[in-house]
Amino acid sequence: MTGAVDPAWIAVDWGTSNLRAWAMGADGRVLAEATSDDGMGRLPREGFEPALLRLISPWLSERPPVVACGMVGSRQGWCEVPYRTVPCPPLDRDALALAPVTDPRLQVSIAPGLKQVQPADVMRGEETQIAGVLRLMPGYDGVICLPGTHSKWAHVSAGEVVSFQTFMTGELFALLSEQSVLRHGMQGDGWDDAAFDTGVSDALSRPERIGARLFALRAEGLIVGLSPQAARARLSGLLIGIELAAAKPYWLGQRVTLVGAETLSAAYARALAAQGVEAPRLSATDCTLAGLASLSPETEAAR
Amino acid sequence: MTGAVDPAWIAVDWGTSNLRAWAMGADGRVLAEATSDDGMGRLPREGFEPALLRLISPWLSERPPVVACGMVGSRQGWCEVPYRTVPCPPLDRDALALAPVTDPRLQVSIAPGLKQVQPADVMRGEETQIAGVLRLMPGYDGVICLPGTHSKWAHVSAGEVVSFQTFMTGELFALLSEQSVLRHGMQGDGWDDAAFDTGVSDALSRPERIGARLFALRAEGLIVGLSPQAARARLSGLLIGIELAAAKPYWLGQRVTLVGAETLSAAYARALAAQGVEAPRLSATDCTLAGLASLSPETEAAR
Repeated sequence: MTGAVDPAWIAVDWGTSNLRAWAMGADGRVLAEATSDDGMGRLPREGFEPALLRLISPWLSERPPVVACGMVGSRQGWCEVPYRTVPCPPLDRDALALAPVTDPRLQVSIAPGLKQVQPADVMRGEETQIAGVLRLMPGYDGVICLPGTHSKWAHVSAGEVVSFQTFMTGELFALLSEQSVLRHGMQGDGWDDAAFDTGVSDALSRPERIGARLFALRAEGLIVGLSPQAARARLSGLLIGIELAAAKPYWLGQRVTLVGAETLSAAYARALAAQGVEAPRLSATDCTLAGLASLSPETEAAR
Repeated sequence: MTGAVDPAWIAVDWGTSNLRAWAMGADGRVLAEATSDDGMGRLPREGFEPALLRLISPWLSERPPVVACGMVGSRQGWCEVPYRTVPCPPLDRDALALAPVTDPRLQVSIAPGLKQVQPADVMRGEETQIAGVLRLMPGYDGVICLPGTHSKWAHVSAGEVVSFQTFMTGELFALLSEQSVLRHGMQGDGWDDAAFDTGVSDALSRPERIGARLFALRAEGLIVGLSPQAARARLSGLLIGIELAAAKPYWLGQRVTLVGAETLSAAYARALAAQGVEAPRLSATDCTLAGLASLSPETEAAR
């Protein structure tokens, strides 16, 4: 490798568990990428600037602006950026907050999250992906589903987030498959499409039975030899199915686009397809970068 | 304290997390009690005998028989005791297994758990409490609900367990309130009856919304100041409510008796009362001891 990286601006996605940064060219191309596990959740307030410098200092010779989104703007983050209230556009350049810095090479703007008053809900990070969808699919009108630790469903119309709803599906899957009694019967990361489909279908057709279906995974492992991959896939199907049961107003008869990690989005797409909804998928990273680009002063001219 | 404890027999409840032992008199009274945190979950197979001796060796001069129930008889326990299959009486003296011991003062019988083939389900320990209910309330016909980490509902008729169903309610509450993102909004052990009632009612009336209601606890804490005690109580209500939604065939129009820890049983009784079901409560310890007594050779004459 030769030559310095001199980005026009730097994109940062700073969540609870991870920190990701991209050196962006003026033409919108990614010049370099860096990641660390210095997530918001493990940093004291005074730890944010050093953590960022560890990752991006080689890119700072031209003092490029840094634009960040995610939990970095939460109360436990670098500096708290107040939520904006829906309905509103997913991002607003005028609502960016400047993080306090000591290194003169740094100039860091943080995007605010969104809140909904009734029913109460919040997001930090997904608003940037939603803005990215609107940049990648101009004029998009419909629903955006963002599967993850805390999956979000957002209704988007006329360039605004109209309403949204959060589900703890990913976190429940992690807790149940790794820390509950069910972990004994689902070691490894095997998969079984038919078991996943059964879980989705069971949860959607009889959602009130969800409490009864979870322990059955353990019991079937003990007495009828349910395989770990089938148990794991059915648990995923049950949890995604119960999410779909509650999110029905978001997808029934709606245009739906999925934004998320590839494997997880594929599972949601499969579950939705079984309900007659064909949902195209976009990469979460592409959407994050497109959303952050819409905030960068370097892309002002391109708006 | 003076005088040796010379029990007629020793009762042992040996679960995943705890070990409890009682020195029992010939008249059925408790002469002494001892507990430790040497649960099945933290012991290798060769660790069971020493753990038991640490607790009960002062009581062994007359070589009293020891009768044990719980996870001690599981595959990961002292010795695996095969499940008996429902419908059947909750306990059967002829199905006791003798644990392998080296100390000549020890003679340890372990009660088998119960399994149900369809829908698949298992229990270890609760069958002894059910037997205790039948001893304390001879001829009991109806439903027994045993709230706990893995709550059980059992239909009992003509002295037999006809069917049962397990719910992971207690484990879900622990995972969500202590390890998930919800923990931030529910520190302490405060309580709020009205919030509990709301949770039960919401979950029972719209069980398919459960996935949406969990994250709302966090969001309401962030943006409308939901108190930790209200968040905690509503989470409990939601989880017990979703259990009641699935367990409806067990309690609707049925005679129900609750067996469990006092505070938890009171919460279940409150939730059931709101549905028009008045469920009397028995102490879990009383039922365990009554069930184990029915297995003790010392109580043969009293059968």
